Amino acid sequence: MNDFVVKGDLAWSKSKSELQSLKDGYLVIENGKIVGVFDKLDEKYRSFELLDYSGKLIIPGFYDLHTHAPQNHFKGLFMDYQLLDWLNNYTFPEESHFKSEEFYSKAYDDFTSEIAKSATVGVVAFATIHREATLYLMKALEKSGVLSYVGKVNMDRNSPDYYIETTEESIKETERWLEDCKKLDLKLSKPIITPRFIPSVTDHLARELGRFAKEGGYPVQSHLSENMSEIGWVQELCPESSSYADAYKNRGLWGETKTIMAHCVWSRIKEDDLLRNPNLYVAHCPDSNTNLYSGIAPSKYYLDSGINIGLGSDVAGGSSLSLFRAITDAVKASKLRYRMFDQDDGILSFPEAFYIATEGGGSFFGNAGSFKKGFDASFVVLEEENALIVPRLTISERVERYAYMSPEKSVRHKMVKGKLLY
Amino acid sequence: MNDFVVKGDLAWSKSKSELQSLKDGYLVIENGKIVGVFDKLDEKYRSFELLDYSGKLIIPGFYDLHTHAPQNHFKGLFMDYQLLDWLNNYTFPEESHFKSEEFYSKAYDDFTSEIAKSATVGVVAFATIHREATLYLMKALEKSGVLSYVGKVNMDRNSPDYYIETTEESIKETERWLEDCKKLDLKLSKPIITPRFIPSVTDHLARELGRFAKEGGYPVQSHLSENMSEIGWVQELCPESSSYADAYKNRGLWGETKTIMAHCVWSRIKEDDLLRNPNLYVAHCPDSNTNLYSGIAPSKYYLDSGINIGLGSDVAGGSSLSLFRAITDAVKASKLRYRMFDQDDGILSFPEAFYIATEGGGSFFGNAGSFKKGFDASFVVLEEENALIVPRLTISERVERYAYMSPEKSVRHKMVKGKLLY
Repeated sequence: MNDFVVKGDLAWSKSKSELQSLKDGYLVIENGKIVGVFDKLDEKYRSFELLDYSGKLIIPGFYDLHTHAPQNHFKGLFMDYQLLDWLNNYTFPEESHFKSEEFYSKAYDDFTSEIAKSATVGVVAFATIHREATLYLMKALEKSGVLSYVGKVNMDRNSPDYYIETTEESIKETERWLEDCKKLDLKLSKPIITPRFIPSVTDHLARELGRFAKEGGYPVQSHLSENMSEIGWVQELCPESSSYADAYKNRGLWGETKTIMAHCVWSRIKEDDLLRNPNLYVAHCPDSNTNLYSGIAPSKYYLDSGINIGLGSDVAGGSSLSLFRAITDAVKASKLRYRMFDQDDGILSFPEAFYIATEGGGSFFGNAGSFKKGFDASFVVLEEENALIVPRLTISERVERYAYMSPEKSVRHKMVKGKLLY
Repeated sequence: MNDFVVKGDLAWSKSKSELQSLKDGYLVIENGKIVGVFDKLDEKYRSFELLDYSGKLIIPGFYDLHTHAPQNHFKGLFMDYQLLDWLNNYTFPEESHFKSEEFYSKAYDDFTSEIAKSATVGVVAFATIHREATLYLMKALEKSGVLSYVGKVNMDRNSPDYYIETTEESIKETERWLEDCKKLDLKLSKPIITPRFIPSVTDHLARELGRFAKEGGYPVQSHLSENMSEIGWVQELCPESSSYADAYKNRGLWGETKTIMAHCVWSRIKEDDLLRNPNLYVAHCPDSNTNLYSGIAPSKYYLDSGINIGLGSDVAGGSSLSLFRAITDAVKASKLRYRMFDQDDGILSFPEAFYIATEGGGSFFGNAGSFKKGFDASFVVLEEENALIVPRLTISERVERYAYMSPEKSVRHKMVKGKLLY
């Protein structure tokens, strides 16, 4: 029985730039899919189970297109460094601990529990190079009920002695991991091919990973044009490529299957055209791009240009797994980009950032992230702090206020793909 | 008996750019003043009351140099507007409600309760134009035990019909309010002269307020060079003045007594010299300057130049009363200023932002904001979330992590000027 009528104050994206809402509305769910939103309940749905959340905000839930599960335990730390120093001094040493079962089980249980309590209903995560730890994470996420894509990371060059694979190992372990995933046959947690970034993978490994993706129909995730030094380094490593994106393309890792590229802070100049690919997704990570002072990605431009864009928490470059935080951070970063750098694109509004966090990222998971007919029946129910002003607000204003005021608060109820988790 | 020995993991600013810390240290307090920090406890302090917070972080507490108490109830809302539209459409209507006792008592009780639970030990706040409401706020803050300066706001021009005073009213009500304050003789909550900003006060009113400040020895607070349209408006209103700051100066409102100017986003160009005044304080409000897309103030430059600078939450332009948030927002804003606008000044580090929030703002209140000999005995005790990494961290790293991870969390214990509040 996956048939429900959900009652409450509903908000979802009407379009890329408009929020739609309905007070005391009915969200009808049949066989795990959305039938629609109604202000009156038709007779034929009266037999469905009623979930009465009257007075509470109900939104579609968020899709986090980029985060690092093995960095969650050190978020909020080491913020006075830029990308490459931060990776070498803090991130690689911490990720290397994930060979220990005692360590990874605790760290990944914590990560999974935080995601489960949050407004995120789907997450795309890097794991580490360790196959066993990656499988542990996938099983934990499956059990939690949220949707996920998880990647065993590949790194066979330019990495420290204590955290590197040989090319052969990396290929073999990836093959074995993909086999293990098939055997496990998880319904909610799926593998995603994950070269860390161009500097970390030899050309041969990159091409093999591209082949796995294409032959197995696996999606791909990596990093793109986050930081100026990184971009310069890729240029040195790939003199034949016209851009960082082109380097991925030359190695068979560009949009052969659905592909997420995190950051794209500086992509507008040389690789704009390559981003206009229906299989390509920009994961916009404003908090991380600020903390590592990489810059401010032109999110409003990407959205207006029809480039696929979702939000990423990018823990631990970002310091929060909350996509409410990512939404307000995206709005804030866009405002500062406009004021201090470039007034051409305009500013990402709150409704636009909300769209990116829901339907924008959701489309990577299929028909997801809205209350439209035929979409995945996923939602979260929010409990607002009592306040002098709430009774005077529209539903859209209440959603904005919740995002700014209570980004880290656990949601009250959560449904993912027709299953009520709590 | 205001003699205490406080035991725990202590952190405070050694200099403008360095954090100092001591694990299992003793903070000795005699007669409400700091004696010093010791790694071993001298025999002569053994009779002092021991407050044993072993294992917990103890920091000096923060001083919020700029916030609007009557905007607290609508923080996190209406974020898609710039300053002047935001004032006219949302802020003035909401502030006008503070003529109602039912409204202001609820709103100010909420504000006071939030401040009391936070890491803020001293706050400088705008109230509204309403004398009774302002006195209510001062009494509520006094009772809470935190230090405060509170200003009845003056507005006799360019304000809406429903929220304006005549010049005569404004002067009379201010005189009466200052008399009321004398009679009340509050120990912790003091009046501060508060012309809203140049556009809101006629020249005559401004000069009278300057006279009150000088004759009564009252400090002054206002807004300066927040937004480009505002600066242009002031230029039109004050053609005789060479800058916005000069307009205050010409009206006797510039550093005759201790004076806080909020924002100073664009002050570097024309009024830099006027800021180099020992009575002048910049209240840096990074979250508000971002939300209203005013810009990014050159905080690192002000700090390095020896200009007095503290942090302001500036609710409701800012969406949080937490000065932990203001600290990390200041670091983030400075990074984006560096990356996207101007690489000359360098980046405000976490220890620098911590200094600004403690001793920087604290100096407006006297010898406050550090654990130095003779300083006010004020501190807060923080309870960290359990995490896999905390045992491996230095105290300074734990403070940084707390600021990023738990900015809104209530503090566990709080002492202000030798009185343990909880």
